[in-house]
Amino acid sequence: MNIKDDSLTLHRMLKGKIEIQNRVPIENIFAKENSLINLIYTPGVAYVASEIGKNKDLAYDFTSKWNNVAIICDGTRVLGLGNIGPYAALPVMEGKSVLFKLLGGINAVPLCIETQNKEEIIKFVKYIQPFFGAINIEDIESPKVLEIVERLKKEISIPVFHDDQHGTAIITLAALINSLKIVGKQLEQIKTVILGAGSAGYGINKILNSAGCKNTIVVDSKGAIYEGRQDLINNQFKSEIASISNPNNIEGSLNSVIEGSDVFIGVSGKGNILNNKVISTMNFDPIIFALSNPYPEILPPSALDAGAKIVATGRSDFPNQVNNAVIFPSVMRALLDLRVKLLNENLMVNVAYAIANLVEIQHLKTDYIIPPINDQRILPVVTQTLKNVMQKTVTENYEKETNTEAKKVNS
Amino acid sequence: MNIKDDSLTLHRMLKGKIEIQNRVPIENIFAKENSLINLIYTPGVAYVASEIGKNKDLAYDFTSKWNNVAIICDGTRVLGLGNIGPYAALPVMEGKSVLFKLLGGINAVPLCIETQNKEEIIKFVKYIQPFFGAINIEDIESPKVLEIVERLKKEISIPVFHDDQHGTAIITLAALINSLKIVGKQLEQIKTVILGAGSAGYGINKILNSAGCKNTIVVDSKGAIYEGRQDLINNQFKSEIASISNPNNIEGSLNSVIEGSDVFIGVSGKGNILNNKVISTMNFDPIIFALSNPYPEILPPSALDAGAKIVATGRSDFPNQVNNAVIFPSVMRALLDLRVKLLNENLMVNVAYAIANLVEIQHLKTDYIIPPINDQRILPVVTQTLKNVMQKTVTENYEKETNTEAKKVNS
Repeated sequence: MNIKDDSLTLHRMLKGKIEIQNRVPIENIFAKENSLINLIYTPGVAYVASEIGKNKDLAYDFTSKWNNVAIICDGTRVLGLGNIGPYAALPVMEGKSVLFKLLGGINAVPLCIETQNKEEIIKFVKYIQPFFGAINIEDIESPKVLEIVERLKKEISIPVFHDDQHGTAIITLAALINSLKIVGKQLEQIKTVILGAGSAGYGINKILNSAGCKNTIVVDSKGAIYEGRQDLINNQFKSEIASISNPNNIEGSLNSVIEGSDVFIGVSGKGNILNNKVISTMNFDPIIFALSNPYPEILPPSALDAGAKIVATGRSDFPNQVNNAVIFPSVMRALLDLRVKLLNENLMVNVAYAIANLVEIQHLKTDYIIPPINDQRILPVVTQTLKNVMQKTVTENYEKETNTEAKKVNS
Repeated sequence: MNIKDDSLTLHRMLKGKIEIQNRVPIENIFAKENSLINLIYTPGVAYVASEIGKNKDLAYDFTSKWNNVAIICDGTRVLGLGNIGPYAALPVMEGKSVLFKLLGGINAVPLCIETQNKEEIIKFVKYIQPFFGAINIEDIESPKVLEIVERLKKEISIPVFHDDQHGTAIITLAALINSLKIVGKQLEQIKTVILGAGSAGYGINKILNSAGCKNTIVVDSKGAIYEGRQDLINNQFKSEIASISNPNNIEGSLNSVIEGSDVFIGVSGKGNILNNKVISTMNFDPIIFALSNPYPEILPPSALDAGAKIVATGRSDFPNQVNNAVIFPSVMRALLDLRVKLLNENLMVNVAYAIANLVEIQHLKTDYIIPPINDQRILPVVTQTLKNVMQKTVTENYEKETNTEAKKVNS
C-alpha cells in the first residue's frame, strides 16, 4: 500500500468526505393534501421563527444548533505542514468532521477561513454563534491561538474546545496516570520534562499542575523555560508556563534538564530530535511520550533499546496511541449534551482519570496504557464524568452559599 | 390541521431538519490491516493537503467545496417577519437547506450571523470562501443587501446568488412569458406596474428591462419612482430603477399609474393592499401577480372577480405558484457544476425562457402558467441552458476577437 497514492485516489474519488443530509421525511413532501413542505418551510416555519425570536434559547429545541460544531482553522499550522493556508486545511478538517460524526454523532462544519488576523478570527467566531452549539479551534499557530481561545472563553456564550491544547492535555494525563501505576510512582513526586511550548505544551503543563505534579520543566527552542528568562517579557503564555512550572528555576538545554527526570513528553512538532543516549540519564523506569505527528521525537524501538520502560506516540501504527482523537469527539459530545459553558481544569483532570480507569488494572501493560480510539465506553464515561463533577460543583456551591447564609443568620 | 401547532411539534421532534453525514465507508475504519482512517485523516491526508497547498483549485477535486453553499442571513428581513435576528432565522434557513438538498443535491450550510453591519457581512463572506463553491444571500434587508451583493460580485472569487433578487426575477419573468402567450401580448408592448422596490422589485425591473419590456413603472411607499424624484439622491438602487424604467417620468400613486397597464406585479411584502376596484382600470385581460408571502397583495378569488384574466401568488395553496423555490436549487446546481463566476442578466433571461417553455403550449391555461416546484425537468433544463449560453458567449467572443484580428491583418 502506497499511502500517498491511495489517499489522493480516495479523496479524488469521494470529492468530499462529508455532506449534508435531510432529517425530514421527504416522501410526498409536496403532496397537496398533506404538504410537509408547508410545515418545514413557509408558511409553517414562520411560527417557529417567531417563537425563537421571542426566546433565542429555543434554537436548541427547534433547530440543529444543539448538535452543531464549527471547526475553525486559519491554515497557519496544519498538521506538521506549517502555514499552508485555509484551502490546504480543508481535507484535514473534513477528516476531523468525519471523526466527530463517527465517534461523537456530531455535525462539525469545517470553516477554514481566509484571514490569519487574530482580532478578525475572534470576531468571526462571535458572528457564527447562532447556528452552533460549540466551537472547535484547530491548527492555528501558537501563541496567537492561545490568546484567541482565552478571549473566546470570556467573550462568547457557547463552549470553546481547543483540541491541540485541551484534547492533548487530557489524553496525555490519562496515559501518564496509567504509566505511573505500572512503574509505581506518584504524580506528586515525579519530575517531568515537556519538549515544546506551543498549544500542546502549554495545555499539558497546565493540566499536570492541576493534577498535582510539582516538578515539571517545559523546554522550548531556547532551552528550559524559567521565571525571569529575558524573552518571556512579551510572551504572556510562556510567562504563565514559567509561573506554574520549574519551581527551582533550572536553566539549560533539554539534554541537561532531562537528567534525573521520570517522564519525557515530546510535543515539539519535530521528529527524531531526542537523542536516545539521554534516556540513560533519566530516573529508573523512564517514561517516554514522543507525541509529535507524523514523526515522533524518537521512534519506539530506539527508545526501548535505550532503556525506556514505557513508550507512547501519537501514531496508530505503534502501541500506546496517545492522540487527542481518542477523546475529542466524546468530550465535545458531553459539552453539547450537558451545555457546559466552560471546560475548566477540574473537569479536564476528572475526564483524564475516567479515561485512564477504562483500562482495568489487570490488563494494564507497558504496551497497553490507554483505550483505543474506537473504544465505545469512552463516550458514555466522559459524559457521566462531566455530569458528576458539575453536579458536585453545584452541590458544593449550594452548601457554601447556605453555610454563608446560615452564618449571617447566626451572627 | 393546525399549521402552527403542527409545525412547532414537527420542529421540536426533529431537533434540526438537516445534519452532516459521512461519505466514507466506515466499516472496519480502524482495522489495523487496512486502516482507512490513515487515508482520510493523518498521516494520509497530509499528502492531499500538500497538493492543495500548491494549487488551491484542487480543493474542488479533493474536498466537498464543489458542492457546498453558504446561506448567509443576518436576520434583518426574515420572511414577512422583519428584523427578528439571526437565531430566529435558523429554522427558515434550515428549511432552505432542505430544499437545496432535495431539489438540487446541494450541501447548504445555514450561516445565520450575529452582525447586521454591511462591511462586516462582506468581510465575513470573503473569509468563508475556501470551504464553499457558491454563496446564497438570504433575507437581508434592502437596500443594504443590494450593495452587499454588488460588492461581493466584484470582490469574491465564487458566484453569489441572491434569491430574493435573482431567483424571484427569473421565475417572475418565466410566468410572465407564459401569461403573455395566453393573452396574446408581447413583452415589448406591455405596460407593467411593480409594487415594491426592495430586492425583488429591483431584480424584476432589471430582468424585464433586459428581456425587452419598454414601459415598466416601479412604485414604492412614496408612489411611482421616476428620474429626478427628490429622495433618490442618496439611494443608488432606486436611482438605478428610475434610469431603466418609467420612460415618461410618470408621477403618482399606485392607483393612478396602474391605469391602462397590462400587468401588476406585487412584491411589496404587504398583504391585501391592492384595491380590487383598480383592476377594472387596467388594459384588457389584466395579469395580476400578487407575490408577497404569506399574504398576497390581493387574494386570487377577489382579483378574478374584479376581472383579472390570470392571477398568480407565491403560495402553494393557490394555482400558479410563482415562487423562487421553483428554481433556486436548479440555478445553484448549474452555477456549481459549470463553475459560473457571474450570473448576469443574459443568463437569467435565458433561464426564464427555458422554464417557461417547460409548459407545453397545448397545456398552457390561465391556472397553469408555470411548472410546479417538484418538476424534475427543471434541474437539467437550467443546467443545459446556462451551458448553451456560456458556450455561445465564448464562441461569439472568439469570433469578435478573430474578426478584429482579421481586420487588423487586412488593414
